[in-house]
Amino acid sequence: MLHLYDYLASGNGYKVRLALRLLGRPYRLTELDILKGETRTPAFLAKNPNGRIPALELEDGTVLWESNAILFYLADGTRLLPTDRLLRAQVLQWMFFEQYSHEPYIAVMRFWLHYTGLDEDKLRQRAKKMEGGYAALAVMESRLAAAPYFVGGALSIADLALYAYTHVAHEGEFDLGRFPAIRAWLARIAAEPGYAPITAG
Amino acid sequence: MLHLYDYLASGNGYKVRLALRLLGRPYRLTELDILKGETRTPAFLAKNPNGRIPALELEDGTVLWESNAILFYLADGTRLLPTDRLLRAQVLQWMFFEQYSHEPYIAVMRFWLHYTGLDEDKLRQRAKKMEGGYAALAVMESRLAAAPYFVGGALSIADLALYAYTHVAHEGEFDLGRFPAIRAWLARIAAEPGYAPITAG
Repeated sequence: MLHLYDYLASGNGYKVRLALRLLGRPYRLTELDILKGETRTPAFLAKNPNGRIPALELEDGTVLWESNAILFYLADGTRLLPTDRLLRAQVLQWMFFEQYSHEPYIAVMRFWLHYTGLDEDKLRQRAKKMEGGYAALAVMESRLAAAPYFVGGALSIADLALYAYTHVAHEGEFDLGRFPAIRAWLARIAAEPGYAPITAG
Repeated sequence: MLHLYDYLASGNGYKVRLALRLLGRPYRLTELDILKGETRTPAFLAKNPNGRIPALELEDGTVLWESNAILFYLADGTRLLPTDRLLRAQVLQWMFFEQYSHEPYIAVMRFWLHYTGLDEDKLRQRAKKMEGGYAALAVMESRLAAAPYFVGGALSIADLALYAYTHVAHEGEFDLGRFPAIRAWLARIAAEPGYAPITAG
C-alpha cells in the first residue's frame, strides 16, 4: 500500500491527499510534525534528503518527494492528467508557477500567521509577500475568467496544486473578494465526488 | 520555427537554450531586458501573463512558459527524458527541487551580486540565502556521490535544470570546493556534444 509521510496542515501535503481521495487510492499515513523537526531526523532524511513532507513511499520501497512530482506520478494514466504532449507541458507550467510564484507568498504568509508568528524580519518582508501573492492571484483570475479549469477544459493536477493554498489564502490574510473567477473555480473543486477538506487524514 | 523569448544572462533561459542545442533544434531568439521591464509590457504579458522569461512560442502560436515545463515539452520523446512513469516523476522531483530549494537561493544571490547590487534589505537576507544555497548543494552532492546523473544513470532535463545555476554558483559567491561530485558532474555536462556556455545565444 502507498505510504504517505505528511503534516496535516500542509497544503503541499493536502494536494497529494486530495489527489489520492479523488482517485480512490487507499494509503497509509504517517504524520510528522515539521515544527518539532520530525522531518530532519536521520531516519527521515534517508527517505527524503531534502527533509520535507510530503514524501510518498511506493510499494517497492522507492520514496518520491516534491508534492507536484508525486501528483504527476499518481495522476499519470488517470483523468487528472491529459495524455497530449502540449497539454501535459501546460499542466506542468501551472504547477511550476504554483511552486515559484504562488506558494512562496500565499503559503508562507499563512505559515507565518498561523504557525510561527511574525517576528521583526518577517514583518519587514510582509508587504512584498502580500504583493507577490496578489500578483499570482491576478494571473490565476485572468486564466479562470477564460476557462473553467487551468488546462484543457477539465480538472487536472494543475488545479489541485493551485487549489491547496488558494482555498486557505484567507488564513494568510489574502482577500479573494475581488477574484470572482477564482471563487467559482474553488467551488467547482469542492463539489468533486470524494473531496475532503485540508485537515482530513 | 520555435521562437524563444529570453534574457541571455538568465539561467532559467539558459536551461532551455542548452536543451535546444543538445537536441539540435534551431530556434529564433528575441532578447528582452528584464532590468528594463521589457517582460512587463502589454505585448509580452499577452504571451506570458506572469511576465517572465523564458517563454517559448510554438509553430502554432501557443506560448509555453516556466523554464522547466518548456524543458519537459522539448525533451518528451528524446533521450533527455525517460519514458518510464517512475523515472519521469523522479526527473520532475529534481526539477521542482531546483525551482523551490535551489534557484531562490543560488540564482538570487548571483542576481543580486551581479545585476541589482545589495541594498540594506538584501544584505539582511544574505546569510539565509547562503545557508539555503549550501543546503541545496549538499542534497545534490549526496545524490551525485552515488550516481553520475540525477535520474536513471543518464543525462536528462533534471541535470540541465540543475546545471544552469550550479555552474555559475561562484558568481553568487558559493564555493564548490567542498563538493567534488558536483564538480565532476558539471564537467560531464560541459563535455556533451553541442554544449554551449550560458551567454551564447
